[in-house]
Amino acid sequence: MTSKHETTVNIDLQKERDRCTFNVVELTHILDGGANSTAERKKLEDFVLSHKELRDEVPEEYLSHKERYESAIRKSALLYKLMQIYDATDNRTELEKSRANYRNMIGHAVFKDNSPFSLHHAMFIPAIIGQGDKDQQKYWLKRAKKMEIMGTYAQTELGHGTFIRGLETTATYEPETEQFVLHSPTLTAYKWWPGGLAHTANYCVVMANLYIKGKNYGIQPFMVQLRDEETHMPLPGIKLGEIGAKLGFNNVNNGFLGFENHRIPRDRMLMKNAKVLKDGTFVASPNSKLAYGTMIFVRVVIVNGMANLLAKAATIAVRYSAVRRQSQPKPNEPEPQILDYLTQQHKLFIIVATSHAMSIAAKWLWDKYSTVVADLETGKMDLLPELHSLACCLKAVSTSDAAAGVERCRLACGGHGYMHSSNLPFTYGLATAACTYEGENTVLMLQTARSLVKAWQQHMRGEPVAETLSYFSKRKAPLERWDKSADKIINAFQIVALNKISGCVTRLEKCIKSGVTYEDAWNQTSIELVAASEAHCRAVLMSIYKNEVDKLNPTLSEPLKRVLHNLVELYVVYWALEKTGDLLRYTSISERDIDDLQHLYEELLLKLRPNAVGLVDAFDFRDEILNSTLGAYDGHVYERLMAEALKSPLNAEPVNRTFHTHLKPFMQGKL
Amino acid sequence: MTSKHETTVNIDLQKERDRCTFNVVELTHILDGGANSTAERKKLEDFVLSHKELRDEVPEEYLSHKERYESAIRKSALLYKLMQIYDATDNRTELEKSRANYRNMIGHAVFKDNSPFSLHHAMFIPAIIGQGDKDQQKYWLKRAKKMEIMGTYAQTELGHGTFIRGLETTATYEPETEQFVLHSPTLTAYKWWPGGLAHTANYCVVMANLYIKGKNYGIQPFMVQLRDEETHMPLPGIKLGEIGAKLGFNNVNNGFLGFENHRIPRDRMLMKNAKVLKDGTFVASPNSKLAYGTMIFVRVVIVNGMANLLAKAATIAVRYSAVRRQSQPKPNEPEPQILDYLTQQHKLFIIVATSHAMSIAAKWLWDKYSTVVADLETGKMDLLPELHSLACCLKAVSTSDAAAGVERCRLACGGHGYMHSSNLPFTYGLATAACTYEGENTVLMLQTARSLVKAWQQHMRGEPVAETLSYFSKRKAPLERWDKSADKIINAFQIVALNKISGCVTRLEKCIKSGVTYEDAWNQTSIELVAASEAHCRAVLMSIYKNEVDKLNPTLSEPLKRVLHNLVELYVVYWALEKTGDLLRYTSISERDIDDLQHLYEELLLKLRPNAVGLVDAFDFRDEILNSTLGAYDGHVYERLMAEALKSPLNAEPVNRTFHTHLKPFMQGKL
Repeated sequence: MTSKHETTVNIDLQKERDRCTFNVVELTHILDGGANSTAERKKLEDFVLSHKELRDEVPEEYLSHKERYESAIRKSALLYKLMQIYDATDNRTELEKSRANYRNMIGHAVFKDNSPFSLHHAMFIPAIIGQGDKDQQKYWLKRAKKMEIMGTYAQTELGHGTFIRGLETTATYEPETEQFVLHSPTLTAYKWWPGGLAHTANYCVVMANLYIKGKNYGIQPFMVQLRDEETHMPLPGIKLGEIGAKLGFNNVNNGFLGFENHRIPRDRMLMKNAKVLKDGTFVASPNSKLAYGTMIFVRVVIVNGMANLLAKAATIAVRYSAVRRQSQPKPNEPEPQILDYLTQQHKLFIIVATSHAMSIAAKWLWDKYSTVVADLETGKMDLLPELHSLACCLKAVSTSDAAAGVERCRLACGGHGYMHSSNLPFTYGLATAACTYEGENTVLMLQTARSLVKAWQQHMRGEPVAETLSYFSKRKAPLERWDKSADKIINAFQIVALNKISGCVTRLEKCIKSGVTYEDAWNQTSIELVAASEAHCRAVLMSIYKNEVDKLNPTLSEPLKRVLHNLVELYVVYWALEKTGDLLRYTSISERDIDDLQHLYEELLLKLRPNAVGLVDAFDFRDEILNSTLGAYDGHVYERLMAEALKSPLNAEPVNRTFHTHLKPFMQGKL
Repeated sequence: MTSKHETTVNIDLQKERDRCTFNVVELTHILDGGANSTAERKKLEDFVLSHKELRDEVPEEYLSHKERYESAIRKSALLYKLMQIYDATDNRTELEKSRANYRNMIGHAVFKDNSPFSLHHAMFIPAIIGQGDKDQQKYWLKRAKKMEIMGTYAQTELGHGTFIRGLETTATYEPETEQFVLHSPTLTAYKWWPGGLAHTANYCVVMANLYIKGKNYGIQPFMVQLRDEETHMPLPGIKLGEIGAKLGFNNVNNGFLGFENHRIPRDRMLMKNAKVLKDGTFVASPNSKLAYGTMIFVRVVIVNGMANLLAKAATIAVRYSAVRRQSQPKPNEPEPQILDYLTQQHKLFIIVATSHAMSIAAKWLWDKYSTVVADLETGKMDLLPELHSLACCLKAVSTSDAAAGVERCRLACGGHGYMHSSNLPFTYGLATAACTYEGENTVLMLQTARSLVKAWQQHMRGEPVAETLSYFSKRKAPLERWDKSADKIINAFQIVALNKISGCVTRLEKCIKSGVTYEDAWNQTSIELVAASEAHCRAVLMSIYKNEVDKLNPTLSEPLKRVLHNLVELYVVYWALEKTGDLLRYTSISERDIDDLQHLYEELLLKLRPNAVGLVDAFDFRDEILNSTLGAYDGHVYERLMAEALKSPLNAEPVNRTFHTHLKPFMQGKL
């Protein structure tokens, strides 16, 4: 076969880079949070990725489910060892590291989905920190950080996820033996989902219903040893296994866990908050809201993760669209790059803007979280409800926008986007899972709605509301003349949000007055409550995105400033066009204004067009991390597609054995 | 572990069935196209599914890519043999069979995605019929129908899909040898995607650029033997292989194909339309539009297939939602079935209505297609452009609505929907693929737009337009007072569509007047052209759905009539609420009318609620065809989830070997 493989970059892609108007590295530094962070990230990438043993010989998608797990353990052991070596030389604080490693996606270079070790750091260690008392932390953190033990976190059960009070696993305290007896009274009480639980972890923080002398004291955390440290055999009374294959995360070894009267000593209950004394006395937590901290932190991490997945998908799709040429609208002219079709720009550029918006929102949320955590230490917790409400809706909107955005990129790559070698299907698997885990999106939107309803009622009583709700006061302002500047559109979205919230409150109050219970009224209004939450979230997200980019202005070079503001404007105008129904209902926008907006949107696409490749290059994903035939830096799309295809084990032989055993007998009528 | 498995149906599901207000079998007969068709379908299902060898011992998702292929060949050989046995006793005509087998989904009981044999009947045989002359049909059809040979159809190349004129494979005629020389001049000329091409088919209809004495005569079809019938080895000059793993369709053995000056005799060009005489004289096709027939047929089949996928997803999600209980909005009351949450009804009931709308649209399109085909035989082809235009947009809208709808169902099942054992991820893989194959959706929407623009210009010149465009004449009617009856909403959607189309035409004409070329003007307007196409398609789809259900009225029992009309109304109102921006722009709808619509929508959800399970039961999918832990008829969701999990080969041993080789050495610092 003819091969055009060259050591140089594809000529179309090179031209795109040549005409980029801004300094790509300047943007990379901003996205990383500073030149130092970029340098640190690259140093880590260079160190880890120099170890070629981290790559599979046969791509994961060809392996059996069991082989994928075994390969993932091999690679995880090596990767985590390398990370330990690297960490030992890194003198930054934990906080500095996690902030700087915001865009650390080293795992993506090793796993197409994720590692079976990942919950150890993501959930097990945070659970010890958040729930263990000082002595417990001292003992368990030491072992956990050294990874002498491998942990996970088990809360969700086969029968209950959203409704935590419904969990059925019991931990019954026996004062006489000073032990808790863990038990799964039903099949639906089995823990279900925790990553690494099936065959990997030997310890687990288990959430269970505490019973003392027949009385239920709510859900409490217990440190449970699952397997013998030497033999890895499950301990007596512990039933473990894998929950089976899934849309994605197939490396992660998600497991189930059931207890048959399994006993653990009293000190295995994590007692930072509530305590059980030797005699069975229950000491309640001084503040039940402290547990929110970890949950909020995880959601901040998710929002940021979604920004990264979108950046990855956009990089793949934009580079491919610069290389791919198709159709011949004008006779005798060459086929255009598909990136020159306005419909393709419409599909892709919003994804770049959305990635920026989410990454900025995550940083902003992180700062807010840090303030709240510092406040909590001093007993101040008035900012907690606002933070919780924001974390809920931002998690929900960012995950659902990310899932839709990744699919938009995948479909924009046509048939080739359907190939695993594009890495877009795996990326979708990661994004869409986040719509469900750590709080199902509809449930989270309704949690935000609950806080919005409450805040609106406070506002109407003349009480102050949280900062991000200060737009409520605009209800009294006269309807402004429509104006298509970004600030005015954001203002319009706030007007939409407050109208939707107030509409829901009116409806709820009317319902209740007519004799319906609050709970039924809530259910009857729930479709509109979700819509109100979304409107609020979009207004907040736009406003954060615009404000934070404005703040960057003094530090930006002129060319980059123009591009980043075009992206902000694109984002705002895109959503205005998506929500014309709301704008027509609640603002002064006219039909002609919508036409104007459409033209403005198209102008912005054309303005961004020359910098499209530069914008995705600035995400600075190494080829190993992109892991994509369509997205590689050199743009040798077709050569890579063929090279990857040839790795399929089916291609090792010209004739598969089933020809002789089944196909030929069938065709010859001898089956 | 405690098992609640009973031989009876889950009590919640039984209660749902007890309170269903209509006769489920009556609806099943309608969906099947008559009681006879239902009986035929069941007879076939009974016959085939009594063969337990058709099931895998280990579910497909645990196998390696290669093992999946090998299992698929084993099962395909058996399945197709059974179908041949069955067919031999079936005296119906081909047309009767394909019509009656509209809802035959027997393959879903055998493969989670599809069979590597499937293109043989779906594309290879139709290509012989559509492109072969009488002698060729006589010879090849006989062999193909007996499946003595296994065929596929190769058009798309690595570098070209949408733009058929851009295909690079050449077939050069040599008068001296009376042979065609097939050649792939570049890597991008390699055929890429055909199902079964890699290791299964031994024949293929190949589309290639015909050259005679240096002159190009366009793309023509060639019957090419790929592999030796006895040894299955690829013939000299033929490069074959598999394209690799994908998001779905991994059983299907999609392949690539390259030629190195491979020779075939002259009579291997399929010459029903164009011909090449021995001396190299090219005889053009009397009518280049004849080839549209097959393409349109395939799109009709796709629309129907999407209705089936949605029906499957809705069955799974609705039954699960009747069994699943979660949260406790009212203290001291049991957890509600999640189907009682309004947000869940909002997610699911529209999917049932959409499945009905699409299945009805497919039948309607089929009738139109049959008329056009009959017309074509007599040389009449004035209905062809309308049919082509409708097939394009209905294919695009049905596939993208189906993909979104299946995901909506999957996400509505929470975490359990992410499990392969729910069968929702595989179902999504099938639906989303259809957004790209047989015409990429954006490209198809723009093809419809092209015909709409042309028709609008004809209409403005006072010329008649096709029947489905007769609503164009409403442009002169005064704006009607808003009315929320289904007919009036459909009328409003037509007003939206004609305004969008006329807006595009005005914009195009203005652009061109200002000196822009037609092609550039088209590209500049393309985002709005796609929107106009969608508006047209939604208006047509709603109108077909409503009209066809109205036509059923005289034959329906009262209870079923009520339910079916509620579904039609739900569908229309749902879309009105989705498109308030368009309605506010182009119709007299007011803010208060939108509130009314929202309430009407919610009332319809509540009206449909008691019949939700009955409606999905009426789709009448056998458990083997649903293949879903969450959707099985008996509702034993949790028992099935656990039973399926235990089939994971990882669960065969308590300790995986990698504990000893990697995990333990890592944890003990000895790696």
